Amino acid sequence: MKPAILAADLGGTNLRMAAVDHDGTIIYRARRATPHERSRGSIVGLISEVANECRAAILPSYQLVSFGFAVPAVVDGSTGKILSAPNLPELDGFDVAKVLSEGLSLPVIVENDANAAAIGEHWKGASRDARSVINVTLGTGVGGGIILNNACLRGIDGTAGEIGHICVEPFGVPCGCGSTGCLEQYASASAIVRMASALLNEYPESVLADEDERTALVVYEAGKAGDRLSIEVFRRMGFYLGIGLAGLINVLNPEVIVIGGGASNGWDLFAEPMTDEIRKRAFQRPAERVKLVRAALGDDAGILGVAQLATRTDFEASSIIAL
Amino acid sequence: MKPAILAADLGGTNLRMAAVDHDGTIIYRARRATPHERSRGSIVGLISEVANECRAAILPSYQLVSFGFAVPAVVDGSTGKILSAPNLPELDGFDVAKVLSEGLSLPVIVENDANAAAIGEHWKGASRDARSVINVTLGTGVGGGIILNNACLRGIDGTAGEIGHICVEPFGVPCGCGSTGCLEQYASASAIVRMASALLNEYPESVLADEDERTALVVYEAGKAGDRLSIEVFRRMGFYLGIGLAGLINVLNPEVIVIGGGASNGWDLFAEPMTDEIRKRAFQRPAERVKLVRAALGDDAGILGVAQLATRTDFEASSIIAL
Repeated sequence: MKPAILAADLGGTNLRMAAVDHDGTIIYRARRATPHERSRGSIVGLISEVANECRAAILPSYQLVSFGFAVPAVVDGSTGKILSAPNLPELDGFDVAKVLSEGLSLPVIVENDANAAAIGEHWKGASRDARSVINVTLGTGVGGGIILNNACLRGIDGTAGEIGHICVEPFGVPCGCGSTGCLEQYASASAIVRMASALLNEYPESVLADEDERTALVVYEAGKAGDRLSIEVFRRMGFYLGIGLAGLINVLNPEVIVIGGGASNGWDLFAEPMTDEIRKRAFQRPAERVKLVRAALGDDAGILGVAQLATRTDFEASSIIAL
Repeated sequence: MKPAILAADLGGTNLRMAAVDHDGTIIYRARRATPHERSRGSIVGLISEVANECRAAILPSYQLVSFGFAVPAVVDGSTGKILSAPNLPELDGFDVAKVLSEGLSLPVIVENDANAAAIGEHWKGASRDARSVINVTLGTGVGGGIILNNACLRGIDGTAGEIGHICVEPFGVPCGCGSTGCLEQYASASAIVRMASALLNEYPESVLADEDERTALVVYEAGKAGDRLSIEVFRRMGFYLGIGLAGLINVLNPEVIVIGGGASNGWDLFAEPMTDEIRKRAFQRPAERVKLVRAALGDDAGILGVAQLATRTDFEASSIIAL
């Protein structure tokens, strides 16, 4: 039997799991809704169940040798313990690596989901071959993962990479994090919807006025059809995204910036104002150097990221080392 | 004879040079005005002259074994070539390491001055024992050097660390870099003077109204004596510095932030608004973790930084490795 890696990405909506070979090919996939009660027991139970499904499905060709687990949480990199999970607070302080490694009889490595996505895109996606990368995920919020000199930047407590909470408008929109004017309030899917509603007074002729359910996709499609309000929303998104990224380009001088997540589908409406702002605000040398690209792996980025981490069962020797 | 390192820091005003032992003790110092014509020949000539002075002064106890050179420029880390020096444009493209190493018969390592200051404070100053550090220099401009996991972050082209050019006010004051609202426009010595002059209309009773020569020091002293305008200037400085640093705390999760440079002497007027803003805007865990401290080495930081880099004559083995 050939060795395979079990990889899982736990989100607020779904638990996605896959068996992955050492080259990063997904052999088998499974998906379940995240348990409503979100208790430790129900989450561990569900993971065990789906893990067994994956284990059985790849027989007799493959055998699981390790488990990589991506979680929406701050993780203690040395122990795999969950330190804080704002959207799954039951998991705060949970030594999930220990419990799962005993239950599954596999070595387990746990990683923050945004870091996992950055590692996945770096291993098999849009930032392959780049040495330093900023990975941006424009979803309900704005997530980030940073790779410097082929190492994932975790920071001293494992909280690094929160580029959604750079301030881009000091007296701007209040953010869930307690600050105001965070990038997340201008460049996420939720921000697109909020900005569209807020602009209706100024653009009474907009097709969005008669739209009952305004989603980021609806705003995007209206913009593509020429709706001036929707175009203005994506211009603002690109403007603020450009401000945030220009600062990061000046501070980190990265080789590649990868932009993914659902709201990145608005690319052809926000990319130009974004790059305009970067050109205006970042230093010429790093601005000309950095490649701005769309993510390549979609929802598989996180799974492939933790699979990469788990390709070495001794983990210490993983090709991605933490900073 | 014991080995000693020659270290130099070339600024717009002065060339500072020192002989340093392997423990970081300065054995001999010299200082000269930076040549007016700023040509390659005059700068190399001056360095050779002062180097010979240092070499002679430390005889017969010490012998120079290597030379570390800090320059206000983007440096190619692998060759020591100066890529671009905005304030000394004659040096653009100059292979200064080669010329000096032939002239002085010493191995030469060249480093950007803001990176050198960060390395110096990390070796012998305020961030000793910290693994990841943001080093901020509040001078005429705002400079930065970043150390992550004991390595200096140079970025893919050597331009990383430009924290003075994070945007903190999107429609703010125009900056020399071409952007608007850069941190440098609110937290440098020049910014203090500009903000003070701009506020005179609102504070006609200020003692600064009758002051012919407004410097950052004059504004500070007026603030300490209770001048409301001056206190407001430092409040704004702290507010924007807090915004910029909060973003960096969320992105880098550093252990220590070191604040130095001439304008950091206003610490007791800007520190409180700065920390207030960090507390409001950064995530709780990294905000509680990070220590905000004043620089310890003053003008010696850059010299000690390049001395540290030059402690190993094979350079490859330097204890600070580039990211």
